[in-house]
Amino acid sequence: MRGTVLYAPRDVRVEDRPDPAIEKPTDAVIRLTAACVCGSDLWPYRGIQDVGEPRPMGHEYVGVVEEVGSDVRTVKPGQFVVGSFIASDNTCEICRSGYQSFCVHREPATPTGAQAQFARIPLADGTLVATPEPPGDDLIPSLLAASDVLGTGWFAAVAAAVGPGKSVAVVGDGAVGLLGVLAAQQLGAERIIAMSRHDVRQALAKDFGATDIVTERGDEGVARVKELTGGLGAHSVIEAVGTQESMLQAIRSTRAGGHVGYVGVSHGVNLPGEVLFRSGVHLHGGPAPVRQYLPDLIDRVWNRTIDPGKVFDLELPLEEAPEAYRAMDERRATKVLLRP
Amino acid sequence: MRGTVLYAPRDVRVEDRPDPAIEKPTDAVIRLTAACVCGSDLWPYRGIQDVGEPRPMGHEYVGVVEEVGSDVRTVKPGQFVVGSFIASDNTCEICRSGYQSFCVHREPATPTGAQAQFARIPLADGTLVATPEPPGDDLIPSLLAASDVLGTGWFAAVAAAVGPGKSVAVVGDGAVGLLGVLAAQQLGAERIIAMSRHDVRQALAKDFGATDIVTERGDEGVARVKELTGGLGAHSVIEAVGTQESMLQAIRSTRAGGHVGYVGVSHGVNLPGEVLFRSGVHLHGGPAPVRQYLPDLIDRVWNRTIDPGKVFDLELPLEEAPEAYRAMDERRATKVLLRP
Repeated sequence: MRGTVLYAPRDVRVEDRPDPAIEKPTDAVIRLTAACVCGSDLWPYRGIQDVGEPRPMGHEYVGVVEEVGSDVRTVKPGQFVVGSFIASDNTCEICRSGYQSFCVHREPATPTGAQAQFARIPLADGTLVATPEPPGDDLIPSLLAASDVLGTGWFAAVAAAVGPGKSVAVVGDGAVGLLGVLAAQQLGAERIIAMSRHDVRQALAKDFGATDIVTERGDEGVARVKELTGGLGAHSVIEAVGTQESMLQAIRSTRAGGHVGYVGVSHGVNLPGEVLFRSGVHLHGGPAPVRQYLPDLIDRVWNRTIDPGKVFDLELPLEEAPEAYRAMDERRATKVLLRP
Repeated sequence: MRGTVLYAPRDVRVEDRPDPAIEKPTDAVIRLTAACVCGSDLWPYRGIQDVGEPRPMGHEYVGVVEEVGSDVRTVKPGQFVVGSFIASDNTCEICRSGYQSFCVHREPATPTGAQAQFARIPLADGTLVATPEPPGDDLIPSLLAASDVLGTGWFAAVAAAVGPGKSVAVVGDGAVGLLGVLAAQQLGAERIIAMSRHDVRQALAKDFGATDIVTERGDEGVARVKELTGGLGAHSVIEAVGTQESMLQAIRSTRAGGHVGYVGVSHGVNLPGEVLFRSGVHLHGGPAPVRQYLPDLIDRVWNRTIDPGKVFDLELPLEEAPEAYRAMDERRATKVLLRP
């Protein structure tokens, strides 16, 4: 099959790779209908995170089941499925508590890479969720979004305790931050403040439900959020970047007793204990347990209640994956969909 | 009046001080029935926190109202009162959300010091809670405990989402940690693991409801908590120390999706973002909104449901405050009650 491999910073190639096959009786192999490039793929692409050995890329996926292992019970060949980026058994005590991304048997869901024609998915029964029937082509981008960016933005909103009557600020205008806006809107937030200085993303944030845009950052950004929230800070703040600056901006934009939901993969962050202690905020986040939300998110997409697929502003054939990385790296695209 | 003043590390004196008087119409002046030395008083006493100008000490107090300002409505001379260490109006939006320690008008509740014969308490209506009638002498230690250590241990347990069926680990065997054990027991925890290597404190922890004692620290302490909780870590962990080691021990002892409630005043803590991200825990804490819990805690003491006063294992006259500090510094006493 054809698949995408990162060799070194900015050296990503689409090449011939071995066809994935069932290795364990709990595996499935799927034929990818669509895949995409994640904000977190840019960390190694930019050399901020070590690349190490050449690695197959991609962990967001939708596709059709080709083959399942002998122990797979709920997923069948021919079904259209959406899965999380972390494989989970969905039966252990941690999974049952809603934290499938920390399943005691967790492993990467796409060891063979999802920016490819086929992928082997471990723990298929626990990881994959089938749609009611094969979806129309117009639903593909939104179903693909559910597998990571929507599920992650949704978890961030839940972790930030978003709910009716709440004020919400969103730090980060990437696809996850934008879908955090959508999640906040769906969860009933009263005021949704998107922090962005990028015209296209501001427009999409408004389309997804943002009521206010704040272009300032740092101290000025915090001051602006406080101005908009009666001087107190937001009830709920979504952090979708992962840097020291963004984490502190999120914490400082939150009122005492409020909640920060952080999902930006942490890079070089060190939180001063005294700042945290004096803030009085709740802090929760980490790798999103997307699997928990998939049935609900697929339902909302299927019923056309939400259209998270709008975050994809560029679509390319798989062979042009290198251009997809460049477009996202240079912020020419918010999120690129790849068609194998 | 006589009052306690810290001049420099290990130089604490009881001396003649001006009698506190009403300064603002929202003030009250109380005659102290009992006061005590807080674990947090030891930070400047030990020179770990800058002493600066000589400062009147003490912020935990029970006493009888002597005089109130012209705007005070709910508190009356002659009433026996318990108050929090942070003065709050108890009417602002933050107070109404239960975070009185972050009241928009907050200030220290004992600017004149509470290890003294009298104290001026700002925002008396919002800060002080009267008992149904003057208490018997045997209730004084427990009512005094409510004003800080019990309220703080209670908040830690609430912040750690303690509840029926939960496993709870408590890092720190000072008075706050021990009363965190008591709070966990009252809130219905199923298993309560006290981390202590001190015989007397282990015994008190068991008396307050601990089901297990772990003497190991660091990696071994974490491993022991995991052993006791099905390999997963505790649902809820109370952190009542405030150091880097204790915070990391607390975070690492908590299962993914579990809750850390931290109330140890943070000193030199820097939380690595990647550790936090990978932990998947909820983190909440800071200065406890004791005022929120006071009516309930006074009620439980009044009804003799709880006896938190047992944390006081030494009682001294006010004049011997320097010995009280020494006894706590040398861990000869868990908590010292002072009688003015």
